[in-house]
Amino acid sequence: MAKEKPSIPKGTRDFGPEEVAKRKYILNTIEKVFIKYGFMPIETPTMENLSTLTGKYGDEGDKLLFRILDSGETFEKIRNSKFEIRNQNEFNNSITEKGLRYDLTVPFARYVVMNRNEITFPFKRYQMQPVWRADRPQKGRYREFWQCDADVVGSDSLLHELDLINIYNEVFKCLGVGVEIKINNRKILAGIAEVVKGIEHLNTIAVAIDKLDKIGKEGVSKELTELNFTEIEIATLFDIITIKGTETEMLEVLKVKLQNSTEGLKGIEELVFIYKTIQPFNNSAILKTDFSLARGLSYYTGCIFEVVAMEGSLRSSIGGGGRYDNLTGIFGLDGVSGVGISFGLDRIYDVIEELKLFPETLSQGSSKVLICANDSIENIELAPVLQLLNKLRNEGIASEIYSEKINVKKPLEKPIKYASSKAIPYALIYTENQPLKFKNLATGFQEELTIEEIIERLQD
Amino acid sequence: MAKEKPSIPKGTRDFGPEEVAKRKYILNTIEKVFIKYGFMPIETPTMENLSTLTGKYGDEGDKLLFRILDSGETFEKIRNSKFEIRNQNEFNNSITEKGLRYDLTVPFARYVVMNRNEITFPFKRYQMQPVWRADRPQKGRYREFWQCDADVVGSDSLLHELDLINIYNEVFKCLGVGVEIKINNRKILAGIAEVVKGIEHLNTIAVAIDKLDKIGKEGVSKELTELNFTEIEIATLFDIITIKGTETEMLEVLKVKLQNSTEGLKGIEELVFIYKTIQPFNNSAILKTDFSLARGLSYYTGCIFEVVAMEGSLRSSIGGGGRYDNLTGIFGLDGVSGVGISFGLDRIYDVIEELKLFPETLSQGSSKVLICANDSIENIELAPVLQLLNKLRNEGIASEIYSEKINVKKPLEKPIKYASSKAIPYALIYTENQPLKFKNLATGFQEELTIEEIIERLQD
Repeated sequence: MAKEKPSIPKGTRDFGPEEVAKRKYILNTIEKVFIKYGFMPIETPTMENLSTLTGKYGDEGDKLLFRILDSGETFEKIRNSKFEIRNQNEFNNSITEKGLRYDLTVPFARYVVMNRNEITFPFKRYQMQPVWRADRPQKGRYREFWQCDADVVGSDSLLHELDLINIYNEVFKCLGVGVEIKINNRKILAGIAEVVKGIEHLNTIAVAIDKLDKIGKEGVSKELTELNFTEIEIATLFDIITIKGTETEMLEVLKVKLQNSTEGLKGIEELVFIYKTIQPFNNSAILKTDFSLARGLSYYTGCIFEVVAMEGSLRSSIGGGGRYDNLTGIFGLDGVSGVGISFGLDRIYDVIEELKLFPETLSQGSSKVLICANDSIENIELAPVLQLLNKLRNEGIASEIYSEKINVKKPLEKPIKYASSKAIPYALIYTENQPLKFKNLATGFQEELTIEEIIERLQD
Repeated sequence: MAKEKPSIPKGTRDFGPEEVAKRKYILNTIEKVFIKYGFMPIETPTMENLSTLTGKYGDEGDKLLFRILDSGETFEKIRNSKFEIRNQNEFNNSITEKGLRYDLTVPFARYVVMNRNEITFPFKRYQMQPVWRADRPQKGRYREFWQCDADVVGSDSLLHELDLINIYNEVFKCLGVGVEIKINNRKILAGIAEVVKGIEHLNTIAVAIDKLDKIGKEGVSKELTELNFTEIEIATLFDIITIKGTETEMLEVLKVKLQNSTEGLKGIEELVFIYKTIQPFNNSAILKTDFSLARGLSYYTGCIFEVVAMEGSLRSSIGGGGRYDNLTGIFGLDGVSGVGISFGLDRIYDVIEELKLFPETLSQGSSKVLICANDSIENIELAPVLQLLNKLRNEGIASEIYSEKINVKKPLEKPIKYASSKAIPYALIYTENQPLKFKNLATGFQEELTIEEIIERLQD
């Protein structure tokens, strides 16, 4: 076989020890908070049946699904079909039955429906797993990335919205990242649609103003004009979504504008409840009402959230979520309201990396002690060296022996290079019939100690 | 859209909170030992280029690869090819460029080659990730399953074989599972091949005796006869691989039989070193020489291992590994010797489950305290209840409020059912203007305590 120059698929990444340690630090921080708030873990398969996935993420989403080729008789199937398939989509559907997980919400809804008889509601679950999208890779956007979700289904209590906002606050406080938690309510958007042009235009308006950050007021206006919105309608829309002031003032003004929309007033009431009830944050997180926040996914029906980092160059969303009243309905279980949030691990990583907020002491799982001898390990009597190793490991101290040939004139040269590459902090230097030397590799300080003294030092 | 009855692809599984907790317990046990032995984590992408994967696992392996459909113009490509593709394999290759990770060894070799300039050797890495194989699902065999691997590359020191054996021993000691760690050496198998029929028959012999467990002596003999092995050759083979006795006796007998094979004697010498040097295990693990252990994969060149549980009905391998002298060679980096082992998470899980060895106290990440009120939460003044919740959470005590409507005549009925489903051990019962009641849900014992006293109790 020809020797290939190996590579990995675009949009995917390898993670070395340092990156794994940093990613784990974020995952552990999020998980700890999820648990503190009473969420329990589930995991779903990497592959889902296409019938579970398609039609849930819009046409755009369907195009971004990675499909898995059935190993069976696909070729014969195609050949026998006399190739009467008309387009890419029909082709894909004819030869694949499975796809890679696209998000954690739809698999969760599928899980709830399949396990409805065993689950006691409200069901509070968290899930931290990778998802895949065949998107064009760019800065902050990968084809394989991790989501960390917490959802409650089977309860319409706003207590859960409060909990989820507090989870965002607490996680980003622990991570040291200043964030703005934007909040809006799809019922308010419904009210706005009603006032502007009619409730049936809710989705059109939501999709349009969702792009406000990207294409600006002008772009959104243009798009709406093309969709037969009049100048007055567009002006009314912008008049409302750009209301300024304190949260209380904004909601008061909106109340007047939406006075004829029962739905809109209900949404305002929900936000008022949240502002009234939530404890003030004692860190740099900000809860900010934003009437222009829409969130594309059409399944949201109540409060919606989006989190944006306040510092650094990456201003895109690092988390989001909201309430959905009938997500499990697509799988045949109606009347189950839910609310959930998601953390985007990879973007959070990029923000923390850019802002240099990772703790310096993150363990990469490296040894604490490297045992070195004054000669190559193959030339010396092994038993006493292995005994030292066992004593350290038996005390739970991660340790290893330098296993390679050394230069006897500079016996520490190679081992120290090795230790430094792994950030091993100490060397234990063994010479037959001589006291052990214990060397701090950061300071270079070296002293003669017994193995028991060394263990005592390291356990302090 | 029609409502579908949802399902998941065959050979895949959902994991609920209890299963996630049990899986994490195994993963954490393995990871802790890996770290103690100086291994550092890496993670590789779920998808690899097909050029990385194909040809590495034999023809049988290639057939079991899950391929990922490129989202691009595959249909047009097929159409334009005028459908001149002849068979399934050609078809698959023409429309896919990526596949799901099949094991952790090949991606690791790829990683080492791609990062050769940054890596200091010996490189000791561990990796715990799922892999996928389109195998026929059956008991103990899944299409998505996890491997936990530890490998050392860039060293040919037998110290690493010792470490890996000790890792197997320590992990299964921690898990309480009695195991037999079978050991053999491919150099011994080479010696046997030399003595039986010629070194060029090594792979044929390895593949045949690998099936001994499944098809028995008769089956293996039949297969070898069909491959033109004479009766005498087959008898010589079985004479050697069934040598019995203590490890020392077995190796002594073998030394005589392989006296004319330099390679074979080298293999014996390696096993002798391991037996001489390894500390005796102080638990139920057994290190057992087995000359019939072959391990199918042709890249092994030195010691090989296989771990089998000693109790329970699942007698298939729950781990295995060995030394390979040139795995990175396929990606263009020659002369790098490596040795590694793998743990099969899912089979280990099945064994521990069957033997009822999971600790009873495994945390599923559930709350410690459920706050209940004497009326539905929507009917009472929220502030004091939220204050209790915050006090508990601020002390790191996982807690939640029962958020649903209750039956005021039996105010604890629904909350206790909920708590019991989540294994929440305590309820805090709030009634306006009355002392708090703190109830142990296991014993039913209830007492009046202040929130500070409750926190003190829970922190003990």
